[in-house]
Amino acid sequence: MAKTYKIAVIPGDGIGKEVTPWAQKALEKAAEGVADFEYEHFDLGAERYLRDGAILPEDEEERIKQNDAILLGAVGDPRIKAGILERGLLLKLRFDLDQYVNLRPSKLYKGVTSPLANPGDIDFVVVREGTEGLYCGAGGAVRRGTPNEVATEVSINTAYGVERVVRYAFKLAMKRRKHVTLVHKKNVLVNAGDMWQRIVDKVGEEYPEVSHDYLHIDATTIFLVSDPSRFDVILTDNLFGDIITDEAGAVVGGVGYSASGCINASDEYPSMFEPIHGSAPDIAGQNKANPTAAILSAAMLLEHLGFDDAAKKIHTAVEADIEELGSTVRSTDQVGQDILNRM
Amino acid sequence: MAKTYKIAVIPGDGIGKEVTPWAQKALEKAAEGVADFEYEHFDLGAERYLRDGAILPEDEEERIKQNDAILLGAVGDPRIKAGILERGLLLKLRFDLDQYVNLRPSKLYKGVTSPLANPGDIDFVVVREGTEGLYCGAGGAVRRGTPNEVATEVSINTAYGVERVVRYAFKLAMKRRKHVTLVHKKNVLVNAGDMWQRIVDKVGEEYPEVSHDYLHIDATTIFLVSDPSRFDVILTDNLFGDIITDEAGAVVGGVGYSASGCINASDEYPSMFEPIHGSAPDIAGQNKANPTAAILSAAMLLEHLGFDDAAKKIHTAVEADIEELGSTVRSTDQVGQDILNRM
Ligand SMILES: CC(C)[C@H](C(=O)O)[C@@H](O)C(=O)O
Ligand SMILES: CC(C)[C@H](C(=O)O)[C@@H](O)C(=O)O
Repeated sequence: MAKTYKIAVIPGDGIGKEVTPWAQKALEKAAEGVADFEYEHFDLGAERYLRDGAILPEDEEERIKQNDAILLGAVGDPRIKAGILERGLLLKLRFDLDQYVNLRPSKLYKGVTSPLANPGDIDFVVVREGTEGLYCGAGGAVRRGTPNEVATEVSINTAYGVERVVRYAFKLAMKRRKHVTLVHKKNVLVNAGDMWQRIVDKVGEEYPEVSHDYLHIDATTIFLVSDPSRFDVILTDNLFGDIITDEAGAVVGGVGYSASGCINASDEYPSMFEPIHGSAPDIAGQNKANPTAAILSAAMLLEHLGFDDAAKKIHTAVEADIEELGSTVRSTDQVGQDILNRM
Repeated sequence: MAKTYKIAVIPGDGIGKEVTPWAQKALEKAAEGVADFEYEHFDLGAERYLRDGAILPEDEEERIKQNDAILLGAVGDPRIKAGILERGLLLKLRFDLDQYVNLRPSKLYKGVTSPLANPGDIDFVVVREGTEGLYCGAGGAVRRGTPNEVATEVSINTAYGVERVVRYAFKLAMKRRKHVTLVHKKNVLVNAGDMWQRIVDKVGEEYPEVSHDYLHIDATTIFLVSDPSRFDVILTDNLFGDIITDEAGAVVGGVGYSASGCINASDEYPSMFEPIHGSAPDIAGQNKANPTAAILSAAMLLEHLGFDDAAKKIHTAVEADIEELGSTVRSTDQVGQDILNRM
């Protein structure tokens, strides 16, 4: 009998609510006969916050933690001041659930038009640290609003936190083209950069088959445009990872085809899977949003639970769908159904 | 009689030494009859450091300060550990000379091939803060080299430092298409981001003709690829400015056509002008490097000294040269001479 997995579903706001049901349908269809899913829905995000002021109540977070994995849609609304939902919900989950690997594959699918004239074969994964760096919320301000205001942001990096994500990147590279590129700014951020480099060098010795090199973050933004096919596994910190995964998303034809996993690779807490796009209030509720990225996040969830064959079914269907119909205008439901029909 | 300006010249390393003489020649030719130049050469950079261990001796820095402006080539050598020359020479000059505006124009010249399929008209300027943020060298490490190591980097931002660069950006926008885009990550870096936004809003009120908007750094990297012509003046902090100016350089066809000014807009100390490319040890000494960016840095120097017409002569010659011969392979000296002949 197939085992039943408990999935926390947070559709969120705007198009998040439209694409998440398709991620669930793809999950079920792909895993038919090998796994069953039981969903617990959580009404979290901008709409909830605007309604009753709640961002992530403690008891709801406790219940989320009882699940095997989390499917997230998208969260956000321009009426809410920057930082509130990000730090109160998204980052809080990443930190509290110790999701230290933020995994973001970038692949240029056949049938998708890249903004680059000669994109080449693009197929790399960014392994972004998810629980440290400038995202930890350290810092403050004095004399706020006066001419003497000073505002600080502190990047905290630990050998413990860096080593575990470095190890993950090398393991992942073994299953891929065996190359890791560390991205940092070690010529300026000498303390953190030096630690990252030393740990990469040390862990790298345990993986003699995996080659590794180093690029500054600024140079990386150049290569993502001029030669993106050079990359296999990019390993970087929380902020640099945020920046280059968006650029990478653009280079592979838009964030509509990119999914992301916030992974607790030690499995103490559930990992979270989501499309990298936002809630897109401008097209919300119009059955226009492309559910492909959400569906790809379901594939990442399956891989995380160990169902590689089921994940593969989704990838194959998505690839075929994009190649054949990627350039035709279809509704959310049409794309979702088209992909499901191929599975 | 034409006034004589004292220029400190730091050719630096590698191709820096090949392109800087062409910047000087362009300077002289463009300013013929309106300004004269007296040069003081400084032997600083990787080669000097490898020879005698000196990075920026105090007396040499004092002499540099006595000049009206600085022409810099490029500094760096792979044999030197990351951070030493950057923090000891380049950043030390930017900080000690209080060069708080790092000005980086990005323009796609006719005749240059962008890596983008449909680049459109690209013509914007990044105004990067140059003396604060994560570049101030605050931070440290404890238990270095142990599993309990913690490394920090501190971003220090002051209302004083932010307001002066914000003001510069709005003034510059008045001479351009009157639009300022603040780039930050205020949904995560809430202390610094909030201060930047408040100061932009406040200074913006003094410039009712200039519109301004806000983009997160991650979204910015997308628009630089998908719609770079939307930008006029981009205003940002030290680290984000470093990152997006390299991406912008790539988008306009490579850093070979981009110059940069480190400007003390209060004129207490000399400002510094340089191509944004590095010392390129792989092609150094082969008369292969393109001197165009260095020549454009001479134009920025002239603008800074108030010689707009002279600067214009350089721009016109460079534009014509690139349009006609940009795609032909020429030596450093050939390109330099071709541009001079047009002036
Ligand atoms: C919404 C924001 C906090 C988040 C981040 O910066 O990590 C987003 O940009 C992302 O990349 O997932
Ligand atoms: C060399 C380095 C310190 C410098 C910087 O990061 O500012 C460079 O990348 C630049 O953009 O001028």
